[in-house]
Amino acid sequence: MTNSTAAELQIDADRLWRDLMELAGITEPERPYTRRSFSAQFLQGRDWLAERYRAAGLSVRIDAGGNLIGRLPGTRDGAPAIMIGSHSDSVPGGGRFDGIAGVVAALEIARTLASGGVSLAHPLEVVDFLAEEPSEFGLSCIGSRAMAGALDASHLALTGPGQETLAAAIERVGGAPGRIDAARRADVHAFLELHIEQGPLLESSRVDVGIVTGIVGIARIEIRLVGEAAHAGTAPMSARRDAAVAAAQVILAVRDLARTMDARGDGYFVATCGVVGILPGASNVVPGEARIVIDARSESAPLMQRFLDEIGPRAADIAQASGVALERFELVSRNPPTACDGALQQVLRESAAQTGCSAMSMASGAGHDAAFVARIAPAAMLFVPCRNGRSHCPEEWTEPSELALGARVLLQAVRRIDGASYGATQRRQP
Amino acid sequence: MTNSTAAELQIDADRLWRDLMELAGITEPERPYTRRSFSAQFLQGRDWLAERYRAAGLSVRIDAGGNLIGRLPGTRDGAPAIMIGSHSDSVPGGGRFDGIAGVVAALEIARTLASGGVSLAHPLEVVDFLAEEPSEFGLSCIGSRAMAGALDASHLALTGPGQETLAAAIERVGGAPGRIDAARRADVHAFLELHIEQGPLLESSRVDVGIVTGIVGIARIEIRLVGEAAHAGTAPMSARRDAAVAAAQVILAVRDLARTMDARGDGYFVATCGVVGILPGASNVVPGEARIVIDARSESAPLMQRFLDEIGPRAADIAQASGVALERFELVSRNPPTACDGALQQVLRESAAQTGCSAMSMASGAGHDAAFVARIAPAAMLFVPCRNGRSHCPEEWTEPSELALGARVLLQAVRRIDGASYGATQRRQP
Repeated sequence: MTNSTAAELQIDADRLWRDLMELAGITEPERPYTRRSFSAQFLQGRDWLAERYRAAGLSVRIDAGGNLIGRLPGTRDGAPAIMIGSHSDSVPGGGRFDGIAGVVAALEIARTLASGGVSLAHPLEVVDFLAEEPSEFGLSCIGSRAMAGALDASHLALTGPGQETLAAAIERVGGAPGRIDAARRADVHAFLELHIEQGPLLESSRVDVGIVTGIVGIARIEIRLVGEAAHAGTAPMSARRDAAVAAAQVILAVRDLARTMDARGDGYFVATCGVVGILPGASNVVPGEARIVIDARSESAPLMQRFLDEIGPRAADIAQASGVALERFELVSRNPPTACDGALQQVLRESAAQTGCSAMSMASGAGHDAAFVARIAPAAMLFVPCRNGRSHCPEEWTEPSELALGARVLLQAVRRIDGASYGATQRRQP
Repeated sequence: MTNSTAAELQIDADRLWRDLMELAGITEPERPYTRRSFSAQFLQGRDWLAERYRAAGLSVRIDAGGNLIGRLPGTRDGAPAIMIGSHSDSVPGGGRFDGIAGVVAALEIARTLASGGVSLAHPLEVVDFLAEEPSEFGLSCIGSRAMAGALDASHLALTGPGQETLAAAIERVGGAPGRIDAARRADVHAFLELHIEQGPLLESSRVDVGIVTGIVGIARIEIRLVGEAAHAGTAPMSARRDAAVAAAQVILAVRDLARTMDARGDGYFVATCGVVGILPGASNVVPGEARIVIDARSESAPLMQRFLDEIGPRAADIAQASGVALERFELVSRNPPTACDGALQQVLRESAAQTGCSAMSMASGAGHDAAFVARIAPAAMLFVPCRNGRSHCPEEWTEPSELALGARVLLQAVRRIDGASYGATQRRQP
């Protein structure tokens, strides 16, 4: 085991940036930046990545869940792996950083260690998780689900374009859906994911990195309000049962209640009405029906419960006062929040300090592969700033220096985790 | 000239109802009740009507504007025509009464006069106006526009299904678009249109007929609000520029302002946000854009002006307070209100009283052919009740007895107009 000091190892910021831009440049030409999971561009990106892994001296494999994994051996026999990485797929018309920032940072860290002649006690694995973004199969985090043992037969039977099953698609990208259980890992010492914040807090606070306390739980509620379609000229104001008027009040109630929850100081809370459908949708017809999907997110399970307890009665009151029926109010999905591992958060905090970075603790409002990996190993996340909080759009941007700082903190964290002090305090998530 | 008394002439309620149901039964079989202008069903309905006209002893013609007109001669040389009628086309998936109630009532009145051996001093014309409902050419009230001299070359050049021009379609149904000016009439003594109310007032007030004071003017405003699309998880509540939240406030402001206008007592006022589009429309994205179409209607031009003066600044205030840009606020169309002829309203009131009907004055919130005919002749309208105010749907319903009462009042009104007393007080609309 080589005892290089931190000062001897420096990630190459320019090389890191060039890698990011090269991988980002593999996109549908008509719709930058798009590298949809399972697509030709996605496979091209993975070929590029695998070649980079090999050039850095990593062994390369695709696991049963379709995750692309590069590995440096550890010096201690049978030691569990330290895992770092993120995902290389994108949303349609997305940006150049969401996902691949963490993938190329992991590559750069492995390359820096290998080229510096530094061997870790633990094996180091750099992972490109399969299909983190909602895929054409209606499912997200496919690879990290598989790694957590949470990808089941019903998921594998989902169909996408051309009636291809998810199982067939995973096989097509090199996975082994027939023995999907083999993807489940029990040998991960710790997992760290670097990702862009996708929000405005680091930038507006002028802080270098965010140490993620937890990944929000997400509740989705579908609402259907049924009033009575009527002639926009002949139905007097007093006789209307206008579903759009009721929907407008629900939208404002969701906003007001979310603000109240967030202001309590008990944890991060946001709620959004992103889907609003008004029917029949003709200028001369009083709307008879409205459909709303509420997306509520919190790192605090009690806060989420409180919101769910209050929004239902409020929607019912609004409907009744508007003469409209609340025909549907259904919690269609609910994922619990995931707390990031406390010891790993502490490692990240110390690594930031050692690297001379400012850091702040924050929740992740977006879902991430780390939330699934946390089921089988201690997991934590490091955020780097992104301009104006914009994400999932071509304007998504992080400065080269910001990305490099994040990679430096992550490298420090990997080395600290590899040391004895982290192992002593390590605990598994329940 | 025969001097029959009112008591000798009775419209045949059963025959009237049978005619209505027969004509209503001519519909697209898969989508009752649909008889779109220019369609095969429409032409079949007109063939049925023309045959009924002829059987009643009327001469039949189609004018240059495509209006189907049956005529009984008058006894006084050169006397202008008394015209009654409505339209036989329907909206898609509409009802059995909107339009054809007035068409079959006019037929029944002509038939009653003819079979009773009563000749009027004035010619009596029963009219089925072409394409009152918004047609596949994007235009409504095509026939009555032509009769008012308001169908111009740009209208005739409009294209519909299969790139057919409106001119070609009018020719196809028997009109003469090449000499469209011939449709313009200067020889109409008075026009009366019986129509279902399409609103709830007569039913809820338990009144037999409505005497229409005016047909509303309609203003349409298109609004586009542009905020910033953002990740529904990572954009904190305080940092959002949510276009749906701004749109919700605009919808409620329109409702509130419309209620205020209506409560002033200066005339009928309604406003509706029937088109509400929220983009991009994904549950995990804070809406970045909203589009609303406001439809405002009033019988009072000053009241409409007041609404237009107030809603613009309110929308601008809402946008500013929401951090959203009011990128478009455009008055895309505006038709003035049409007052019904005062002398004809008085005739209808007296006719209702003579027939033993209760009557109330009311505005028409819907547009009608009468609004165009009013440009060239004194015009007025008589409303009959419709169940629950429902219209433009298969549930549209008027009781046989209610329709018969309306036809009786209309017959009385025609006879009064034919008499000397009406002619003396008659005045033309400006």
